[in-house]
Amino acid sequence: MASENIDIAIVGGGVSGVYSAWRLQQHYPQSKIAVFEASDHIGGRLLSVRPPDIPDMVAELGGMRILPEVQPLIYDLIQELNALLPAPEQIELYRFPVDEPQNIAYLRGVYLRLQDFTTEPDKVPYRLNFLDRGQTGGSVIIDAIEQIVPGITNKSLTEEERRLMAQSASFGGVPLYQQGFWNVLFRVITGEAYQYAEDTGGYDTTLCNWNAADAIPWFLSDFGVSAQYMGFCNGFQQVPLVLAQLFEQAGGEVCLEAPVSGVTRSEQGFQFQTPGGTVSAKTLILAMPRRALELLSATSPWLQESARFQQLTASVTPRPLFKLFTTYNSPWWLNTGYSKADGEYVPVKSGRSVTDLPVRQTYYWPRSNGQPALHGHAMLLASYDDGDNTGFWDGLRGRRHSAWKKGLEVAELADPFIGADDHVRANELSWHRYKAPRMMTEEVTRQLTVMHSLSYTPKVRNAAFRDWGDDPFGGGWNSWNIGVKSWEVKRQIIQPLDGQPLYVCGEAYSDAQGWVEGALQTADMMLAKLV
Amino acid sequence: MASENIDIAIVGGGVSGVYSAWRLQQHYPQSKIAVFEASDHIGGRLLSVRPPDIPDMVAELGGMRILPEVQPLIYDLIQELNALLPAPEQIELYRFPVDEPQNIAYLRGVYLRLQDFTTEPDKVPYRLNFLDRGQTGGSVIIDAIEQIVPGITNKSLTEEERRLMAQSASFGGVPLYQQGFWNVLFRVITGEAYQYAEDTGGYDTTLCNWNAADAIPWFLSDFGVSAQYMGFCNGFQQVPLVLAQLFEQAGGEVCLEAPVSGVTRSEQGFQFQTPGGTVSAKTLILAMPRRALELLSATSPWLQESARFQQLTASVTPRPLFKLFTTYNSPWWLNTGYSKADGEYVPVKSGRSVTDLPVRQTYYWPRSNGQPALHGHAMLLASYDDGDNTGFWDGLRGRRHSAWKKGLEVAELADPFIGADDHVRANELSWHRYKAPRMMTEEVTRQLTVMHSLSYTPKVRNAAFRDWGDDPFGGGWNSWNIGVKSWEVKRQIIQPLDGQPLYVCGEAYSDAQGWVEGALQTADMMLAKLV
Repeated sequence: MASENIDIAIVGGGVSGVYSAWRLQQHYPQSKIAVFEASDHIGGRLLSVRPPDIPDMVAELGGMRILPEVQPLIYDLIQELNALLPAPEQIELYRFPVDEPQNIAYLRGVYLRLQDFTTEPDKVPYRLNFLDRGQTGGSVIIDAIEQIVPGITNKSLTEEERRLMAQSASFGGVPLYQQGFWNVLFRVITGEAYQYAEDTGGYDTTLCNWNAADAIPWFLSDFGVSAQYMGFCNGFQQVPLVLAQLFEQAGGEVCLEAPVSGVTRSEQGFQFQTPGGTVSAKTLILAMPRRALELLSATSPWLQESARFQQLTASVTPRPLFKLFTTYNSPWWLNTGYSKADGEYVPVKSGRSVTDLPVRQTYYWPRSNGQPALHGHAMLLASYDDGDNTGFWDGLRGRRHSAWKKGLEVAELADPFIGADDHVRANELSWHRYKAPRMMTEEVTRQLTVMHSLSYTPKVRNAAFRDWGDDPFGGGWNSWNIGVKSWEVKRQIIQPLDGQPLYVCGEAYSDAQGWVEGALQTADMMLAKLV
Repeated sequence: MASENIDIAIVGGGVSGVYSAWRLQQHYPQSKIAVFEASDHIGGRLLSVRPPDIPDMVAELGGMRILPEVQPLIYDLIQELNALLPAPEQIELYRFPVDEPQNIAYLRGVYLRLQDFTTEPDKVPYRLNFLDRGQTGGSVIIDAIEQIVPGITNKSLTEEERRLMAQSASFGGVPLYQQGFWNVLFRVITGEAYQYAEDTGGYDTTLCNWNAADAIPWFLSDFGVSAQYMGFCNGFQQVPLVLAQLFEQAGGEVCLEAPVSGVTRSEQGFQFQTPGGTVSAKTLILAMPRRALELLSATSPWLQESARFQQLTASVTPRPLFKLFTTYNSPWWLNTGYSKADGEYVPVKSGRSVTDLPVRQTYYWPRSNGQPALHGHAMLLASYDDGDNTGFWDGLRGRRHSAWKKGLEVAELADPFIGADDHVRANELSWHRYKAPRMMTEEVTRQLTVMHSLSYTPKVRNAAFRDWGDDPFGGGWNSWNIGVKSWEVKRQIIQPLDGQPLYVCGEAYSDAQGWVEGALQTADMMLAKLV
């Protein structure tokens, strides 16, 4: 396409982009609508790859689960898509296990089973006070939240009611939205209780200093007592892939390897550059997170100079986060369970173990049917890590942001881990594109050995790695900044410049940051203005 | 000055700038040399202010000490300056106390005296192995360093010999300069030992993931067993103030409130803008750290487009760091000591206490003669904090970088702490310019109460605060990035563009990052090319 004129241009082929594209094409079947995606595939931070040695597993290098009870948009969308899809292509879910009681917590040099947090409080190596002793880390935080905003943990409240409570709440005489989550937690629990919750939670950034009025309802949704996660039998990337396919079937155009730069205003609306040529569009939708918006505005003086656009986009912080998957000849972790008094052996086989070592959390990855791998080749989400610990791994990987500048999706590694099955379907499986750094894979292995109280773990067969801190994403998720009234920014950034047909959507500026639900929420808010 | 032509322009009135200016003016008495400083005072990150209620104390909001044994440049400079100064104006030093045995370590909810680390290892709440038990955190790291580079802790080595050893060393088959300090430490000590050393050391960034080949000799110098710190009776800022005065006496010109922007090349050398007009200079010296170089090059397309300049300047990372001072009616901390078996009371009176709470380290500030305050008004360096914990305090202070954009030295606070003596010499004492945020001062007070095992601490009279993460500094110090050969960059960045009379100096690109010694080292290297 050289100098094409279209009606609606959508930049970004993540879930918010292709979802919006499909809805718009459904509503305006005669309109010329196109999605421009910089990489060579649809999905954004949904990226499902199959390991070369395990046909019935899918590694989720990006988003991996949903919470149907509190995420109606994605759940209903899946039902809607399934009604349109032939039986063999349907999107199927499985129960995604997390905290199994026999799994390991290696904290402060002490080995525990997860069940010990509540049954053996004397073993827990944190000096917790009378009220916190015997509670899980999650319960400690929920009790703290109830102290900060009395009544908010009442289970009869809706998500929206909780958000409204937090938005209007004050703590210590100061509006909650002007305070950091870490700061207010520290007022109501001890430093030890905070550290216990962070270490056992597996994440560093969820309890960090983001906007307390957003963090509190977010935490209650995500880590609510009854939360049941669901995973995707064929990988979460199937959802945006299906959406893109339906969009194309409805007459839309998907342009891959089409990074967009140099946006200007024109008489018809907007003009911008892609490798294929200049595109003019009446309406422009930027379906992307903060860092991508910054990269785009750096080449678009008109956006760069708009104080309002810059202020709105800067209202969140991208949070680096990575995933490293490893495969093995056998599920060696089965042997790290224990024998009950009656002699029955309880293996470690599914869900997650945690540690305060930089490796932080390890998932014993399920088969595509959701069942644990009990023999044969098996896979770990060996490390899923964010926040302060990413600095540790930065020393063992390539430099962040370098790939984007060279037009690559991921950095070329000087010293990659060489997989045993690098030759298997080498040109076909996208697994092979997401090479893990050798030194990082070795250090993760070393820490896995320590956290499982083993002296030996079998050789890693294959490894895949994706760091979402890289450009153009900047982070695995985004969190609202302290002082921002997210409920206002959320509405304003949808159409940031009054009257102009420029729109922004995606997870970054939503109530469900880091979740596909947030991407769909902002897409729906935007679509309400457009259809 | 409108459209002035000078011989040498020095941008940045920190110690490396005014030191270079004085040396050059001495050597070239006929040359027209000027220092351009953005703020209204000389000193950069040396900033000594007197509290309104304590005439014989000086709060060091910036650098506060030297290590004469391993810092000959600053020590000899002080001798040289004193030979030129009349007796009452001489630069006087006192022994700066740090780790007094009776001081407090509040770690993981456990109260210890610093002496307990070695005398009562059972009380220390870290699961240390046989070799590390009973050692201080510093000793644990020194033993680890000896494992990483065998022989390097030999006391008969010079600083330079240690640096050369680290530069040529490999660890685990990979050159040390390609590895992070955190990463290599983790290979030779346990996670618990690392956490113990970080928590008890008081700093987060010294053990973080910077270039291991630089970190190791740096750590051995700074935290060597025999290190004796010296403080400045009249404040460290006296050194750059004296240097600027001598420079002016020699015929040089100091331009305050003269931020520089828009540097271009001209026939005579360089041209740039200051509020007073355009300046042309044959030689241009940028005496500033990385962040300031970035801010300058953002307005200077020629520097922005120089790949070499950008690559060299990007070889270090600025590390945010702040100081908060508080004054009280009396030194309440005296009562947090203990009684010996013979009944003698050992008060806490000088040096430092540490904790793993975000307040991290507190110094019981000495009088100008170096003696502890035993009665009357007294002062604390209540918090001296860096690294991950700055994120905690970010929620209780104004937004970083906002002041510089508005042409201010420090941000105007919406909610400042109101000092009891805000009226005392209000226009005269610079203390009053460095207001502390109210919420931050209150939270520091709360944590000080906890870390001293008290239920009550007296009201704060006055508070002063400086965050060196703010522009144009970007950090309290800078650390070499992993993968950089600092010994090459250090020489190249002195004159970054071949043959052009453009020079860079300062702490950021030295062997003694974070120290005035580093500023003088790079200034001397630069002067060797110029005189």
